[in-house]
Amino acid sequence: MKIYDIPGFPSPLRIRVVIAEKALASRIEFIKVDLPAAEHKQSAFLAINPTGTVPVLQLDDGTYLSECTAITEYLDNLEGNPTLTGTTAKEKGLIHMMQKRADDQLIDAIGIYFHHATDGLGAQLKPYKKPEWSDRTVWGQMHRDKAISGMKYFDEVLKTQPYVAGDQFSMADITVWAGLIFAGFAQIAIPQECTALVAWNAKVSERPSVKNPA
Amino acid sequence: MKIYDIPGFPSPLRIRVVIAEKALASRIEFIKVDLPAAEHKQSAFLAINPTGTVPVLQLDDGTYLSECTAITEYLDNLEGNPTLTGTTAKEKGLIHMMQKRADDQLIDAIGIYFHHATDGLGAQLKPYKKPEWSDRTVWGQMHRDKAISGMKYFDEVLKTQPYVAGDQFSMADITVWAGLIFAGFAQIAIPQECTALVAWNAKVSERPSVKNPA
Repeated sequence: MKIYDIPGFPSPLRIRVVIAEKALASRIEFIKVDLPAAEHKQSAFLAINPTGTVPVLQLDDGTYLSECTAITEYLDNLEGNPTLTGTTAKEKGLIHMMQKRADDQLIDAIGIYFHHATDGLGAQLKPYKKPEWSDRTVWGQMHRDKAISGMKYFDEVLKTQPYVAGDQFSMADITVWAGLIFAGFAQIAIPQECTALVAWNAKVSERPSVKNPA
Repeated sequence: MKIYDIPGFPSPLRIRVVIAEKALASRIEFIKVDLPAAEHKQSAFLAINPTGTVPVLQLDDGTYLSECTAITEYLDNLEGNPTLTGTTAKEKGLIHMMQKRADDQLIDAIGIYFHHATDGLGAQLKPYKKPEWSDRTVWGQMHRDKAISGMKYFDEVLKTQPYVAGDQFSMADITVWAGLIFAGFAQIAIPQECTALVAWNAKVSERPSVKNPA
C-alpha cells in the first residue's frame, strides 16, 4: 500500500498512529506531498483525491481512499480484528459519534482558524483558500472560539470516562489528540480549567503508537 | 428505542430510510422536536445532545447517540447483518469516504447556505445562528456554489458505477439522496448536465425504504 502525506501534520499523524497501532508500517510506502507549495491543490493530486486533502491511501489493487475516518475503517478492519473502530453496534455508534464531534469541533474548527485568520501554510497556498472573501478573519476567529468550546466539551466527557468514546482507546482518541497537536501549531492554548483533558492527553501521549507513529 | 426528530427534514429522513431498510420501525418510538421554535437549542435538548442537532437515538439502556453516521452504524450492526455500512475493509473504507464527501459537499454546504443566506427556518431560530457576523450571506452563497460543485462531482461518480460507493446501495446513497431533498427545500437546482445524478436519483427514489420511510 502507499500513503500520500507529509510527516508531522495533524491529519497525516492520525493515520500514522493508526498504522503504528495496527503494526502495518512494513506494508506501507510513504510518498511526500508538498503542502506549503500547494501540491495537493494541483491537477495531478486532485486526480487521486478530488477533495485536495492528505492523507490518501492507495490500496494494493490501485483504489484510492481519502478521509481519515475512511482510511482508519479500512486499516482497522484489514485483518478482521478491529481495535479502533468498535466491534459491537453500540461501540461503533459511540466511536463514530465522538469521531464526528472531534472532527467538527477540533480538527475542522482549528483548520478554519489556521487557514483564514492566520498566515496558515504561507503565500503559495493562500490563493486556494478563497482570499476574495472579505470577512474571513472574523470567520476564522469564530472557529477558534468553537475549538476552545470543543476542548471544554471533551474535558467534561473525560471527567467521567477514561477515553473519548468510553472505556477503551479508539480512533476518536486519536482525532482529539491530533486536534490538540493542531491547536498547538495554531497557538490556541488549552484552557487551564481543562484538567481532565490535559491528564488524558498526557496518558495518550505515552502510548507506543503515539510516541512513535509510523 | 426512541428517536427525537421532526418528520420530513433531511437529516431525520436519512435515519428514517435506514430504519425502513433495516425493518426496525416497530421497535422505535418517535418524539417530535420543534425545530422552528428552536427547541433543539434549549437546555433540555442540549442535555441529550450537546451538538443541538436532530435526530438523536436513545438506546434501550438509556444511552444517547447523535450524528447520522453514528446512528446508522448502530442500527445497521444491531442484528449483526450490516447491509448499509459495508462488510469488508474495502467496502467500509469506500462507504465512509463517500459518506464524508456527501456530508461536506451536500448536506453541510446546503445547510450553511439555507441558514445563512436565506430565511432558513425563520425568526425564532435565527439568534442561534450567529447573526452578529456581517458577511454571513456571502459565506452562505459560497456554500451554495460548493453544493452545486458537489452535485457535479457525484454526477461524475455515477457515470461509471451504479451507486455512490460502488456496486451496492449504502448509507452514502441515502446521504446524497437526502442532500438532493435538502437542495430542493433550499431551491438549489440540480445542474441540467448532471444526467447520471438525476437518473440515479430516480432509481433510488423507487426503493421501498425511500418511498415509505419510517
